[in-house]
Amino acid sequence: MHREQKGKLTVQSKVPVNNARDLSLAYSPGVAEPCIEIHQSQEKIYDYTMKSNLVAVISDGTAVLGLGDIGPHAALPVMEGKAVLFKSFAGVDAFPICLDTTDVNKIVETVKLLSPTFGGINLEDISAPNCFLIEERLKKEVDIPVFHDDQHGTAIVTLAGLINALKVVGKSMQDIRVVVNGAGAAGIAIVHLLLKMGVNDVVMCDRNGAIYQGRSEGMNEMKEEIAQVTNQNRIKGELRHVMQGMDVFIGVSAAGMVTEEMIHSMADQAIIFAMANPTPEIMPDQAKNAGAKVIGTGRSDFPNQVNNVLAFPGIFRGALDVRARAINEEMKIAAAYAIASLVDADELSSEYVIPAPFDPRVAPTVAREVARSAIHTGEARLQLEPDDIYKDTVKRTKPSI
Amino acid sequence: MHREQKGKLTVQSKVPVNNARDLSLAYSPGVAEPCIEIHQSQEKIYDYTMKSNLVAVISDGTAVLGLGDIGPHAALPVMEGKAVLFKSFAGVDAFPICLDTTDVNKIVETVKLLSPTFGGINLEDISAPNCFLIEERLKKEVDIPVFHDDQHGTAIVTLAGLINALKVVGKSMQDIRVVVNGAGAAGIAIVHLLLKMGVNDVVMCDRNGAIYQGRSEGMNEMKEEIAQVTNQNRIKGELRHVMQGMDVFIGVSAAGMVTEEMIHSMADQAIIFAMANPTPEIMPDQAKNAGAKVIGTGRSDFPNQVNNVLAFPGIFRGALDVRARAINEEMKIAAAYAIASLVDADELSSEYVIPAPFDPRVAPTVAREVARSAIHTGEARLQLEPDDIYKDTVKRTKPSI
Repeated sequence: MHREQKGKLTVQSKVPVNNARDLSLAYSPGVAEPCIEIHQSQEKIYDYTMKSNLVAVISDGTAVLGLGDIGPHAALPVMEGKAVLFKSFAGVDAFPICLDTTDVNKIVETVKLLSPTFGGINLEDISAPNCFLIEERLKKEVDIPVFHDDQHGTAIVTLAGLINALKVVGKSMQDIRVVVNGAGAAGIAIVHLLLKMGVNDVVMCDRNGAIYQGRSEGMNEMKEEIAQVTNQNRIKGELRHVMQGMDVFIGVSAAGMVTEEMIHSMADQAIIFAMANPTPEIMPDQAKNAGAKVIGTGRSDFPNQVNNVLAFPGIFRGALDVRARAINEEMKIAAAYAIASLVDADELSSEYVIPAPFDPRVAPTVAREVARSAIHTGEARLQLEPDDIYKDTVKRTKPSI
Repeated sequence: MHREQKGKLTVQSKVPVNNARDLSLAYSPGVAEPCIEIHQSQEKIYDYTMKSNLVAVISDGTAVLGLGDIGPHAALPVMEGKAVLFKSFAGVDAFPICLDTTDVNKIVETVKLLSPTFGGINLEDISAPNCFLIEERLKKEVDIPVFHDDQHGTAIVTLAGLINALKVVGKSMQDIRVVVNGAGAAGIAIVHLLLKMGVNDVVMCDRNGAIYQGRSEGMNEMKEEIAQVTNQNRIKGELRHVMQGMDVFIGVSAAGMVTEEMIHSMADQAIIFAMANPTPEIMPDQAKNAGAKVIGTGRSDFPNQVNNVLAFPGIFRGALDVRARAINEEMKIAAAYAIASLVDADELSSEYVIPAPFDPRVAPTVAREVARSAIHTGEARLQLEPDDIYKDTVKRTKPSI
């Protein structure tokens, strides 16, 4: 399919150019009008150009799917695919840009220089720990939203699943003990989001086991920071040991890290999000046998799929529509609640805590709530009715006949 | 129109994403296949991605249409318009990128870093003299074609007009005396192309009059170089003086620079290409009254419009189709002959030396001849039948019903 099509994207003109008059409107001299207006008032670029609907999907090819560091050329099909999803799920025009460098300064500088054209930046498949620094610096240095989906998309959808899973098992965010296994992009973002949600007891593990203040082996800046604000009891040792008595296991690591024994050692009504790709940390039926109550994975062939496509299209849709300067923490949490809200109380069960990726209500709902949150938190440069954003997103994503 | 549409471009998906199977093909895990293939053989990026049909339209906003230095934000409508023309006239996917810097090093570096995604680079509306250095360095440092349309597009179409005009007046390239007024991007490129075509006597003028070896006022590196290879007779003084006895006047300067008197002072059967925009150096009826034989301008409301749209779409179409590494001088000359060839011998007249911009034979012919030239000069990485390129371009540009 990829070969036949020579790629998955094309650039489409919205205006006809069939004669001299068309030409004089689309190009010279008619196009001078919007140029002059933008030159006088830069904000008007949002009225007159594609910037109002355009997101750059940017990668350096260092952490592509399950393939790892394959470089910018080999990463291009994935970035095209991401752009396809942005368009299909929320009508966002997204354009892939694969950068031929892994230097943090060069990546930051390049994205800054590109930013006039775009309404938002989606960072994709850039390896940890560079991805943290790149995102942090870009958020400070450009005036459009910057969002690393591998971090926050996963975190938001996991949170949505957790919000509903807690209802199923009758526990609260403040009372649960959570272990997050895997200290890469997704793991770090998940921990930060959980803390923001008021989870009091989080322990993060990596290949060296529990991360705690004072550990010397295999640490970096992000993990040091995590160690300061998690694992107050300074639990040490391998995952097996940490799992004991935990209410929630969140895995963004590798296959086979979790055994049935380890699930047994958790608290009753354990919640498991085992998202290692393609093979989860433990297979759902094994987890179920071992007594887990709610189980989710990254896979479409099991219930409760944690799929980032539930988040990033609607998030950018809402952010773009109100010209948000950034996608802040409140907006991310609003997105998580929006996703969770689509599972009705009477449908909620251990097998259904996350809506399906193709549920057409998802992107419009997420867009509406993210936009509402942007307006409330002063991030929006344009005030719109959130309900109108819902309707507009539905229109944008009607399948073409 | 620009306001209603919120810009003139949109990104279109070529593949449906309606269910989990579609998702697994367009994205994970199906997309891993082409990634692995490209990782093993980088050339395959052309088979599997949009790179094979994609040109970046890049500007820093310093020389936009007749508006001058309006910056990257205000330039965006123009770059979108350029992309519309690429798509409409030759089916080339073009994407606008407006860079927030005027620093030559930063522009070169940024374009290099972007280059994995694109099959070609069209530089646009970047002011002289920076545009020369940027194009020169990029041609050395990236392996895809780099082409500054304000330089070469104008030069190529002017050359096409001249080739036919010389047939009308019965003179030859080697025998004519040519003055080029205006030493910016287009003027410099025109002079270089004329010299390549074997014109022996060219004098370039700028605001300070004739450019000659040894002149000290208002010189720069490009003009110094021009001074070495033109105006062997070291003619000095203002345009009025230089015009005397000239066979051809080419204007890329400003309105009102040329009077009827100056036309009178030229040789018989003078050829005039007065391309100052929006008002030519002299109006066609005045030039005709003063005895000029063939007259062209940049305007669509007079005969013989020199419009770059006759060149750049077909040039990139041909270059992309054979994966040319560059658009070299032979390819540019091939494009000029291709354009000129579309005026049949029995239609040729002083009022018709350049085909009309909307003549549907133009882009396919230019594409075919540019591709043929790329193959002949060893620039092509893919061998195709030039006639197939003609047919393919016709297909790509059929108006959609």
